[in-house]
Formats: sequence, C-alpha cells, structure tokens
Amino acid sequence: MAKRIGRYVIELPNRPSLLAGAAAVGKTEREGPLKEEFDICYESDKICEGTWEQCESRLTSDAVSRALIKAGKVYADIDMIFAGDLLNQCVASAFFAKNTDIPFAGLFGACSTMALAMALAGLATDSGAADLAIAAASSHFCSAERQFRFPLEYGGQRPATAQRTVTGAGAVLFGKHLPERPFVRAVMIGRIRDLGITDANNMGAAMAPAAACTIIDFLRDTGKKAEDFDQIVTGDLGMIGSHLLLDLLKERESVDLSTVHEDCGNLIFDPRTQDVHAGGSGCGCSASVISSYYYKRLCSGKIRNVLFVGTGALMSTTTAQQGSNIPGIAHAVWLCAPEES
Amino acid sequence: MAKRIGRYVIELPNRPSLLAGAAAVGKTEREGPLKEEFDICYESDKICEGTWEQCESRLTSDAVSRALIKAGKVYADIDMIFAGDLLNQCVASAFFAKNTDIPFAGLFGACSTMALAMALAGLATDSGAADLAIAAASSHFCSAERQFRFPLEYGGQRPATAQRTVTGAGAVLFGKHLPERPFVRAVMIGRIRDLGITDANNMGAAMAPAAACTIIDFLRDTGKKAEDFDQIVTGDLGMIGSHLLLDLLKERESVDLSTVHEDCGNLIFDPRTQDVHAGGSGCGCSASVISSYYYKRLCSGKIRNVLFVGTGALMSTTTAQQGSNIPGIAHAVWLCAPEES
Repeated sequence: MAKRIGRYVIELPNRPSLLAGAAAVGKTEREGPLKEEFDICYESDKICEGTWEQCESRLTSDAVSRALIKAGKVYADIDMIFAGDLLNQCVASAFFAKNTDIPFAGLFGACSTMALAMALAGLATDSGAADLAIAAASSHFCSAERQFRFPLEYGGQRPATAQRTVTGAGAVLFGKHLPERPFVRAVMIGRIRDLGITDANNMGAAMAPAAACTIIDFLRDTGKKAEDFDQIVTGDLGMIGSHLLLDLLKERESVDLSTVHEDCGNLIFDPRTQDVHAGGSGCGCSASVISSYYYKRLCSGKIRNVLFVGTGALMSTTTAQQGSNIPGIAHAVWLCAPEES
Repeated sequence: MAKRIGRYVIELPNRPSLLAGAAAVGKTEREGPLKEEFDICYESDKICEGTWEQCESRLTSDAVSRALIKAGKVYADIDMIFAGDLLNQCVASAFFAKNTDIPFAGLFGACSTMALAMALAGLATDSGAADLAIAAASSHFCSAERQFRFPLEYGGQRPATAQRTVTGAGAVLFGKHLPERPFVRAVMIGRIRDLGITDANNMGAAMAPAAACTIIDFLRDTGKKAEDFDQIVTGDLGMIGSHLLLDLLKERESVDLSTVHEDCGNLIFDPRTQDVHAGGSGCGCSASVISSYYYKRLCSGKIRNVLFVGTGALMSTTTAQQGSNIPGIAHAVWLCAPEES
C-alpha cells in the first residue's frame, strides 16, 4: 500500500525502479551543453516529412522506443503509457500512442507533465496496477510557436523574459524494484498557485510560486532539509523563475536552495552562446533532461538523492486573450540512486 | 495490491467506494429526459457573469461542491482531484481546481475523460495513495462550439451525424470501501483505435471501434459475458455510434450487446423533441449522467453490475485541418451496487 506522509507526500513502499530512460531532441538542443547526454539528436527541427505536430509525435516515439530497447522490452510488454504535451487536446502524445497499441492515459500538466506522468507511473507500478509503465512528455518549438504565439514565418520578436520551447521528448520506463536501477521513493501531486501573473512571456514568474509551494510542502511532510537532497531540480523555471524561486524560499520560508537547486530550463541551453532568452521550457525540456542527464547520474551514483519538481503554467491562448491570470502547478518525484551504485 | 486480470483489466481488491456523486447541467439538458436526475440545472447556458470557459469551470465547481456536501466533506478533506475537459490545455478543470487548493492531476481523454478520471481515482484510493479522491469532467456547448467549430453568432448548420456538446459537469467522490455505497471492482485503461474516420461531424463512428475493443478486452480478461452485466454503458457514442458498436460486436465478435447496452449520449437528450441531431457528446455528457442517473440506480440497487465504458475521439482542430484521422479511445470502470442494497 502506498503510504501518505504528512499531508501531501505519497511514499511508494515497493520502490518501483526506473528501468531505463531515453531522450530525443532537435537542432538547438543538439547545439546546447547537454548534447552528449541525449540519445537521439536531430540536425534540424524538421524531424520527419510530416507536420510539426507529427515531428513532435516522432520525438516521443524515438524516446520511448530507445528506452524500451535499453530495457530489452517491446511495446507489447508495456501495460500503460502516461503521457502528455502542450498541444491542444494532447495530440502529439495521442498520435504517438495510437501506433503502439499500449493502454494510454493522456495527461495535461503543461510543462509539469513529465513529473505528473512519472508520479502516476510510479503509483501504477508500486500498486501492481502495471508491471511495466512508461512516463513520457514532449514539446516542439515549431508546433508550440504555431499554437501559442505567431506563425514562424512572421518572425515575432520575444522579450528577454521569454523562454524557448524545447524541441524534445523524454521517456522513462518504470517497473518492479531492481537493486541495480534508480528508484522512486515518493511522489507528490501539486496544488495550483496563482500570484496574479498575466504575462505569457514570463512563464518562469508564473511557475515559481507553485515550485516554492511544492518544495516547502515536500520538505515539511518528509521532515527533510533542502541539503538532504543532492539536487532539487525544477522543471523549467528558466533564469528568471529560478531567481524568483530562490528569493521566495529564502525571504518567505528561510529556506536556502542555492547550493542544491538546478533547473532543466537553465541546463539545456547556454544563454551566452544561444539565442534562447530566459532559457528552455516546454514539456519536452524537463522530460528530456530528467530522462537522460539526471537518469545517468543517478544510475552511476554521482547523485544519490534527487527531488524532481516539474513546473507548469496553466493557460491557453483563450484564457490569455481573456486577460485571465496564469496559474502555476508543480508535481514532485523523489528519485534515488541504486543501492548497488 | 491491485491485481491484473488477463491482459488489460486491473482488479481493485480494496473495492474503493463511490461515496457521493453530483451533476450540474445547462438549459438543453434541463429540458431533456434526465432533468429530474441532475442536482443543479441552470435555466440558461450563461451560468455565470464570466466567459463561456468560466461558465464551464463553474459547472465543475457546482458538481464537486454538491458531491462533497452529500458526503459531509470539504475541499480540505480531499487528497487529489483527477479532472479534465475538452478545452485547449484543460483550462476549465485547471481554473476550477485553482480555487480548491486540492492537489490536481490534469487529464485528457476527450469524451472518455470521466472514465479515465474514475479509473485513476479508483486506483489512487485502492492503493492508499489517497484516502479521498475526486473524479470530475466537464464540457460546455458554447465553449466547445467556439473552440472546435464556429462562433455561435455564425449559426453554423450541423449535419445529422453531429452530436451536441453537453453543457454539464459531473463529479464522483472516491474513498475507502463502505458497505452502504457503490464500489469499483475493476478498471481498464483503453488502447487507441483508428479505423480511418476523418469526419469531425461523426464522432460516434470514430469512437465506436475503441468502445468495441475495450468491451471485448474486458469481457475476455474477466471471463464475463455481456449479459453478466445489468448494463454496459458507453460514454457518448450517440445514435450512430451506438448502432455501429452493436453491429461491430455482433458481426465481428458474435457478441450481442443489444439487451444490456445504453449510451449516455442517447439518454441525456430526446431527439424526437430536442434539436440535438445524433445525441449528446462532450466530457460533461457521461460525467453528468454517470454521476447522477447511474450513481443513484446503483445506490438503490436497481442495477447491481455496470460496466461504464467512456469513449473519446482524439483530435484537435489542427489535426482535423491537416486531414489526420480521428482515432478513438475507451476506458472502462466496473461499478457495483452496495452489498447492503
């Protein structure tokens, strides 16, 4: 039985393992600091002959297929896929899943989707609902620009606070506990936070309060201190959101995250050499970074104790045009290195 | 521990109970055959002073609040909400959830969302991940028309195969097993089926093959016959999809569903007196009908054994404009009357 610790944290007593992880990314990500970490790097964001949306589905397909190959599994072995993306009606994930014949649970958590998928895949494998479950998420710069901003041809300028949607997908395969693989110790579904941000070009600011809330809840419920984790990794707050998070926690909660905090949106690009403004974003950002860079570091034991806090901004073009605020949410997954590393 | 039966069905050994259900609907639903069943019926689809999207969030809020009142609970008692809707980025559910401060797992299964939410809320309460979890889904005729079809002012004509998006929301509260309440015996996450339908005005045809697949899988895995269920209830195939489902099962699988099959899309409106074309659809259709009509019949023991098969069509305006097929998915929840009824 899963066990609730404190008010919000759910401990997974069977400690389901992350059997394999893989990531597929596009051109700008291939030119970034993590290029060596990704399994598949395309030379262009035109990943297949189809539409941008089909290119995004292809990235998910690549990441999932590669993760399965690493684990020596095939689609038919998998009991459940938890996946989502930023596109209207989650079509990138659905059109990938339809070719797999695997039971598909569609999720929406904006850029927090990978954390939500990992939390639910962890619960499913811990409870016996699934022997093998996949968590995956994707985004594509071009499908996101078309849907949320301007046609690419328009060449719209983005302000310095804007983040660049990552062209990428990540997938992690969950299964029964194996001592030689990283495992999930606990998960937490987040509460929505709304501090009145309305600037769709400053998602970091919209998500930082939710990240702060989830981290504080998690530390309180588990009785841990920030420094008990080798790393507390936020999804994609980017440069501005990351600064806000550290300030919020220090000023309001007297929690100093500066020594352990990293952010996937800050790691995937190099703002000094790449024109990415405030960093990376999109479901595929944390999905690709967690599934490759952090997964490998956990496997090797370089880091033993990671709190992954996926962050999402809950808005649509309709709510933005209607002048609604942009609420944020953050889900958490506590990942541990293998005992045998 | 949840137990997999056969290939796809997941038995919930702790038999989590449906502690309460409630539904809130709009004008056309109030004029339909189930008007007496719903908890809240608005006289107009303009349910609040805000936008159509805010009206939809309000319906979810109404349904959830009413369900909690019936169970003597408040938001603060609830561990998790599983909810979704048809709107881009699931904003109807997110903007409801942000006012509750309850951990929020956003889902997308198109019109199958309520079944997906009930399946995951069942798993969460069965496994101990949540003591109390809510499953909810919503749709609104006007927010759906604006997003998927034409501005209402345009007065677009719909073909006879089209279904009318239900203005409504339904919510069910899940918790530990109580002998005096209906319970979930098993759940199943569906696989996507794509038989090449491209007509966005014939969703029933797009969803029927997925419903057939899930029903056949469920019967095979559990060793049950159709007639072992008092009712096999599909989400919202409508008139055309329902006929296709019965034909598919009879011709291809020699399964006769005619004596036990009902469809929420056929029940919620009266096509003889209401201008609803092929029946009701939208996440709020099965959500409102299951949470009220069927929930009450299960509580009273009028029906003891129901297989709820929520059906969804996985498409967006972008994929439709790109000429993609409309794949379907169907998730199943096996609901039983209280032992004490």
